Amino acid sequence: MKLKNDLLLRVANGQPVERPPVWLMRQAGRILPEYRAVREKLRDFKELVTTPERAAEVTIQPVDILGVDAAIIFSDILVIPEALGLDYLMEEKRGPAFPKTIQNQKDIDALRSDEEAATHLQYVYDALEITKRELNGRVPLIGFCGAPWTLLAYMVEGSGSKTFSKAKKFLYTQPIESHRLLQKITDASIAYLKRQIQSGVDLVQIFDSWAGILSPAQYQEFSAKYIAQICNAITEAPITIFAKGAWFALEDFAQMNCNVIGLDWNMNPTESRRRVGEDKALQGNLDPCCLYASTEQIRKETNAMLQAFEGKHIANLGHGVYPDTPLDGVRAFIDTVQAFHYES
Amino acid sequence: MKLKNDLLLRVANGQPVERPPVWLMRQAGRILPEYRAVREKLRDFKELVTTPERAAEVTIQPVDILGVDAAIIFSDILVIPEALGLDYLMEEKRGPAFPKTIQNQKDIDALRSDEEAATHLQYVYDALEITKRELNGRVPLIGFCGAPWTLLAYMVEGSGSKTFSKAKKFLYTQPIESHRLLQKITDASIAYLKRQIQSGVDLVQIFDSWAGILSPAQYQEFSAKYIAQICNAITEAPITIFAKGAWFALEDFAQMNCNVIGLDWNMNPTESRRRVGEDKALQGNLDPCCLYASTEQIRKETNAMLQAFEGKHIANLGHGVYPDTPLDGVRAFIDTVQAFHYES
Repeated sequence: MKLKNDLLLRVANGQPVERPPVWLMRQAGRILPEYRAVREKLRDFKELVTTPERAAEVTIQPVDILGVDAAIIFSDILVIPEALGLDYLMEEKRGPAFPKTIQNQKDIDALRSDEEAATHLQYVYDALEITKRELNGRVPLIGFCGAPWTLLAYMVEGSGSKTFSKAKKFLYTQPIESHRLLQKITDASIAYLKRQIQSGVDLVQIFDSWAGILSPAQYQEFSAKYIAQICNAITEAPITIFAKGAWFALEDFAQMNCNVIGLDWNMNPTESRRRVGEDKALQGNLDPCCLYASTEQIRKETNAMLQAFEGKHIANLGHGVYPDTPLDGVRAFIDTVQAFHYES
Repeated sequence: MKLKNDLLLRVANGQPVERPPVWLMRQAGRILPEYRAVREKLRDFKELVTTPERAAEVTIQPVDILGVDAAIIFSDILVIPEALGLDYLMEEKRGPAFPKTIQNQKDIDALRSDEEAATHLQYVYDALEITKRELNGRVPLIGFCGAPWTLLAYMVEGSGSKTFSKAKKFLYTQPIESHRLLQKITDASIAYLKRQIQSGVDLVQIFDSWAGILSPAQYQEFSAKYIAQICNAITEAPITIFAKGAWFALEDFAQMNCNVIGLDWNMNPTESRRRVGEDKALQGNLDPCCLYASTEQIRKETNAMLQAFEGKHIANLGHGVYPDTPLDGVRAFIDTVQAFHYES
């Protein structure tokens, strides 16, 4: 089906657009009262993730209510560790917790194979098919997965952490096991993304949420390498890499088979463009806290951002939108981008 | 008194040295069994901070036991908020918590003046005098304070946070009040550092622990400006700025009246030197998690780091040493630096 609004895909594919597309990371979520109403009727976050009709419903909400230029499937990066055999709990405010973690080769051997893991995630493919049908071509649908390093970090550490020192210790003390685990996650992620695309996804984003806690050398060895594998394997749809805090790896991403590089709000658009070169599109990067400001200030900062990126740009925040962000702020951001026009 | 080992001060002052000095952020702390023994006899962390004899004792321990090239006074950056009138609790594993926070101008008006605050911190000056006397000129003594932005972050947020979104919201929605609070903290910090130097401190370090959560533009407006004020006011001793995550501000620090710029482990020594220019010394920046590795690997990575910095370098980790770091790892790091010699 031909998309009515294909701005996102045109930018990803290097084609000209009249204005940047705009969407927000975590747009399907607690910022919307309509989301909270759906969520309240269910037992917990995970029931929402695993119930295709409900996941599809909240995925479409920001398209209906906010008019964003793309939908992103409501899900979690931790579905892959779970599909591999590591159950997680998602506790409100405390974040994810893994009762069982990976500590050695035996734990890695006990994980499911990549194909078994990908098959385990039928509920995601079902949610994508429902979403795709109900979107009815209005906007592109984004699928996603976590980067192998970020998933290893949770699987070894067992929870979120300020330092992820257990996970990093694993890299330093068990490098061979680390690479085996990263390869297993990579293979499962490739199988998972391929099925997402078969289920209707138009673009996939790889989230490397904990990129910024690795040194540049470790990042190359334990993260960038596996992201590059995923980029090489996924030829069916454009790819966005968003590695939070990994400003030092922008030159590496520029060499990969990806289409879009996401920037967090620490990364200056002009310097980032210089690092990345002219080839790829850039995505981002307004400070999510800017949406707490007055409408006037949001307009000013958003316009400054749009001008700094110049072109080849997908407007977004530099991180997921925070749950307590006022909807007026979110609307001011979206409206400002959609009122912007590139000078021809 | 002339120092027997003045490597740190020579590097800070741009003088030649035969090898880099080495110390570790948080070296006076839980890595040492001797520290834990002192700590166990006391009620809590704050009793240790406010008891000059005990604070001096744990400050000197790493000089005696590890042979580091500098002592840093055992204290906390949050003594300034407390001296200004905001009491904090320090809970083991949970970090600091402020029962009362700053939300508006009235809260700021209720704070003590800078001179009252500095006077309130007599226990720190006493600890410094005892330490200085007992060090007996063996190594230089480092004093410190938190950067105004980092202290504001705690005073507004009320605790540590992954996003510090309340503190950042304060900057966006109450910029005038933010600047008034930052000025108050700056003035108190200047008065505090001057008295530290009068009490025997040879070099002061400004810790901007939460630098990395501000956008480059906000960092300039709400943090760098106040750090520059402190640097201009403190002419009695050399100054180190350590702003974690603020790679984007290295050029700004290079323009300030400081002597040393600290780097975290994300910052590449060669690129950082290019950004900073030849004038200042650099401090850092081994990944603290590297000390979990084998002795052989620690030696290899430490030597690689020393070579990458070339000269004008104070060896340290890129962050405070983690409490569960094996002492053998710490010793391997220190020994490797102390065995290194610059080629003449």
